[in-house]
This record gives sequence, structure tokens and C-alpha cells, in this order.
Amino acid sequence: MSVLVVGSVALDTIETPFGKADYVLGGSASYFSLSAINFTDVNVVAVIGEDFPSKHLELFDSKGINIDGLKKEQGNTFRWEGKYGYDLGDPDTLGTYLNVFETFNPELPDEYRRIDNVFLANIDPEIQLKVLDQVESPKIVACDTMNFWIENKVEKLKELLKRINILIINDSEARELSGEPLITNAARKIMNLGPEMLVVKRGEYGALMFSEEGIFFAPSYLLEKVFDPTGAGDTFAGGFMGYIASNDINHISDYKRAVVYGSVLASFTVEDFSINRLAVLKKEEIESRYRAFLKLSNMD
Amino acid sequence: MSVLVVGSVALDTIETPFGKADYVLGGSASYFSLSAINFTDVNVVAVIGEDFPSKHLELFDSKGINIDGLKKEQGNTFRWEGKYGYDLGDPDTLGTYLNVFETFNPELPDEYRRIDNVFLANIDPEIQLKVLDQVESPKIVACDTMNFWIENKVEKLKELLKRINILIINDSEARELSGEPLITNAARKIMNLGPEMLVVKRGEYGALMFSEEGIFFAPSYLLEKVFDPTGAGDTFAGGFMGYIASNDINHISDYKRAVVYGSVLASFTVEDFSINRLAVLKKEEIESRYRAFLKLSNMD
Repeated sequence: MSVLVVGSVALDTIETPFGKADYVLGGSASYFSLSAINFTDVNVVAVIGEDFPSKHLELFDSKGINIDGLKKEQGNTFRWEGKYGYDLGDPDTLGTYLNVFETFNPELPDEYRRIDNVFLANIDPEIQLKVLDQVESPKIVACDTMNFWIENKVEKLKELLKRINILIINDSEARELSGEPLITNAARKIMNLGPEMLVVKRGEYGALMFSEEGIFFAPSYLLEKVFDPTGAGDTFAGGFMGYIASNDINHISDYKRAVVYGSVLASFTVEDFSINRLAVLKKEEIESRYRAFLKLSNMD
Repeated sequence: MSVLVVGSVALDTIETPFGKADYVLGGSASYFSLSAINFTDVNVVAVIGEDFPSKHLELFDSKGINIDGLKKEQGNTFRWEGKYGYDLGDPDTLGTYLNVFETFNPELPDEYRRIDNVFLANIDPEIQLKVLDQVESPKIVACDTMNFWIENKVEKLKELLKRINILIINDSEARELSGEPLITNAARKIMNLGPEMLVVKRGEYGALMFSEEGIFFAPSYLLEKVFDPTGAGDTFAGGFMGYIASNDINHISDYKRAVVYGSVLASFTVEDFSINRLAVLKKEEIESRYRAFLKLSNMD
């Protein structure tokens, strides 16, 4: 089994109270694929510019990530500059330079069209729809979005929600999309828009999964050392979808395990700048933290 | 087994986006005892004024709460006025009138001195110490505190922490007391000050329990209807200490169950103004919600 991801590949400049990193590898598709590759084959659809360092392509390649759908265009790669305060919560965006991403018009390579697990990372819902149109018979489609699309392209977003299975967003996005302050009410309204499952990411407070079978509450790993939260949400999605794509999913307990793996992977990403921690992550580390994670909410 | 609580009994005026309540029963000792009484005998040490409505005394009495230590003094009862915004987070305090609470000097009735489970609710650490001095051989002592005492009486507070077993505070208090932004580091520092256990209340994000045996992460009940959060923390402490006082506690799993019962009881308190929900709460409702609660973090 394999998974297709469409999203951004970026060069980030990040400042936290603990240090600064210039033009490091970022973007939703980068975090997602370096996370999901621990579980399944990953196929990336994204765009980069002429300035994109070849060492990042070599990293994807060395991990076995399929980048046939990563197109190089004239101009610079998408750039984002952000700064975190001591709470390591939402960063201030100091600059967003769309560059080649501005005219991103994804065309799936032929071999991508038959992939049945799809993750539509947070990009314009029109582009998310365009990608979905090119997938022949998607089985499980998950997507992310953000306040900008909720505020500016809600009709396209609603069209998309009718065609996906799982929406993976954060607390405030769920409240904004539904107009409901209470998360259980928000979940009910969102599931009425189409998705049969909603996963709400709550950062250091864990994740909630809503489905017809009820609610599941997964703790977040309690980090001794949070260094840079950038990419945690996309890493979560990568662990979640990677686990789903690599297993026979036929019971809610399989989805619960996927949520926990998502949180486990995210807990590694925040330990270092950029994808540095994911780049050196070992299977044994994932399994060991998965066990520690289950222990957190074990009643015995 | 039984539990002794020292704290405030107050008349609260509370405004939320959903309504207003004037001079209703409040105070840490009220919430604590109406919660703990579902599990064990409860003995209250507090002070009221001449204006205190007798119907509240009748409520305590009808529930079987021992109020021999509830002293009536000349003057008015402690009053608090607060207003909540739509996030139902921390309220704005519109007024605090200490009244008889200003000169509160608790004297334990003789029969209280041999009680071995003690909860020192959030009051001046000097008064908490004075009460503890009067208990002959305390077995499990838990206490609460707040930013005001951390900022103004930290030496007395540290003296107290050396003599207690369990500190029950919220997230921001744990960070302020320890000077550590990360909660695991905060917990380590706080446990070095004396308590062998730290319970961190995180409101709608659940509760964390730190001990030598590791960390336990309890979800909060996801409320369909949050009405008034006042007293949730003291209700939590009442369920937690009530369960501990009523059971043979000799394993970490017993403390985990106590944390879950604390969260269950708190989830009822926030459904109505004041102690209204606790006043009519039935044992079956507690057990049924306890089961629903365990289901939230069950992996099957």
C-alpha cells in the first residue's frame, strides 16, 4: 500500500527563543512524507524552485520517498519566515513568499493516479479538488485546511469536504469552520458537512478523534525538550496516514493506533529545527515511544 | 475513613454569557465537600457571616456533611464577583470582599484532629500550616494554592510543601511556582520541594498526575454543555480526595482512578451555576460517567 501527498515544499527561516535556522527544509509535504515513510511508500506532489538545494532531494531519495511528482519550476522555492515566543505556541509570520507556489498546478504522474490513500495538505481547496479529480479510485482521503481558506474559500472547501473521509485540523480551525465554541458540537457540525471522521490536533494537549463510534482522546507525549514546533501537525498527519496505508484498517481501534502513531511522530519533529529529527529517526525509537505513549493513559 | 477540608465558604455573584446568578453558594470548601461526600465522610473548617442563608446549612446537613467546624462570625460572608467570556476560561474578578474571611483563624473541633486525610484548599499558606499543625497524625495531605500566594508568600508556601503529600494546582500555577515553562520540568522541580505527587489541572484539556511511578494523563469529559466553570478545580479535588479517603490506596492505579473520579465530578459542576448540579447529583450518574470517561482513552 502507499500514500499520495500533495502540499508545499518550502525553505523556512525560523526563530525560536532557543536559536535560529535559515532557509531550512520545510513545508507540509516535506514533514508529511518524512513521517509517513516510516510506515509505507510515499509519493509526493509539490513544486520547488531553481534555488532548491539538491541535498534535500538526496534526503527524500535516500529515504525512499518517490519524488516523481515534485516539479521544478523557474523562480525561487516557496519561503516562510516565522518567529516563536517562549510559549512555543502559534508563531508570528514575518514573511511569506509564494514564489513558484503561486502558480502551482499539480499534474499527477500516471503511476500516482492509482494510489488509494491520499493526503491533501493545507493548500487552496481548489488545488486540493484538482488533485482529487486525478486520482482514479481513492479509498481513504484525508485533508487539512486553515483559517485563510475557511474565511476566503469556504464554498470550495465545503465541496471538498463532501468528497473526503477524514478531516485533520486543529482546535481553532474546527471552531471557526463550524461556528461552534464547544468542540463536541463543532465535530457534529463538521461531520454533517461530509467527513465520516474528524481528527482535532491540540498541540501539547493531545488529539481528539471523532467518528460514529464515539470520541477517542489521545494524549500528547510530554516533551522534556520542545525546540521548534514547526511541522508538528503535518508530521502527525504523516504518521496517521502512513499507519493507515500500511495496515488492514477495519476497526475503530486501528484508527486509534493511527492517532497515537501520529502523535508519536510529531513528538520527534518538535525536538529539533526543520526535519532534522525525522531525518535520523529510527524504527526502534518510534516503537519505544509508542509504548511509552500508551502507558500515559493506561489505568493500571 | 473521612476527610477534613479547610477553605472558603462564599456567596458568589457570577455572570456568564448564558446568565447571571446573585449571591449563590460558592467557595472552595463548599465545592470540595459537596463533591467528596459522594465517596466519604466530610468535615468542613471554614467561616461564614451573619448573612449566610440557612438553606445552605440545610443543604450541607441533608448531604451528611459535618459542619461542626463551620464557624459563624459577626459581619458578612466572604463574597466574590466574577464574569466569564465566551471562552469560559479564566474569569474577570469584578469584586472580592473578604469580610469575615479576613480574620479567619481556624480552630479544629476535637473530633477533627484525628482525621487522617486532609485537603488544604487555596487560602493563605500560613492558615494552611496552622490547620495542619492541629491534625494529630495526618496520613495523606493534599493542598491547592494560587498565583497570589506564589508571588507574595512563597517562603510559607515552601514550608507547607515540605509537609504535604499531594499538590493539586493548575497548569499556569505549576509553571509559575517552578519557573519552568515545560510541564515535565516544572513537575520535577515542584516534587523536589516536597510533595511526592503533583496533580496538574488543565481544565477542558484534562489532568496530569506526576509521581515516582511516572506520568498519568486523564482526559477531561467532553462537555456538550458548559455553563459555569466556577468551582471545577475544587470539585475535582473533592472527587480525588474523596475517592482516596474511601479506599485502600496502595498502588498507583488507585490514584489514577482518583484522578478520573475528580474529573468526572468536575464535569458535573460546570453544567449549572454554583453547586446546583452537585446538589442533585446521583451515585448512578457518577458511575455511568466514570465508565464513559474510561472509554475516551480506551485503545480497543
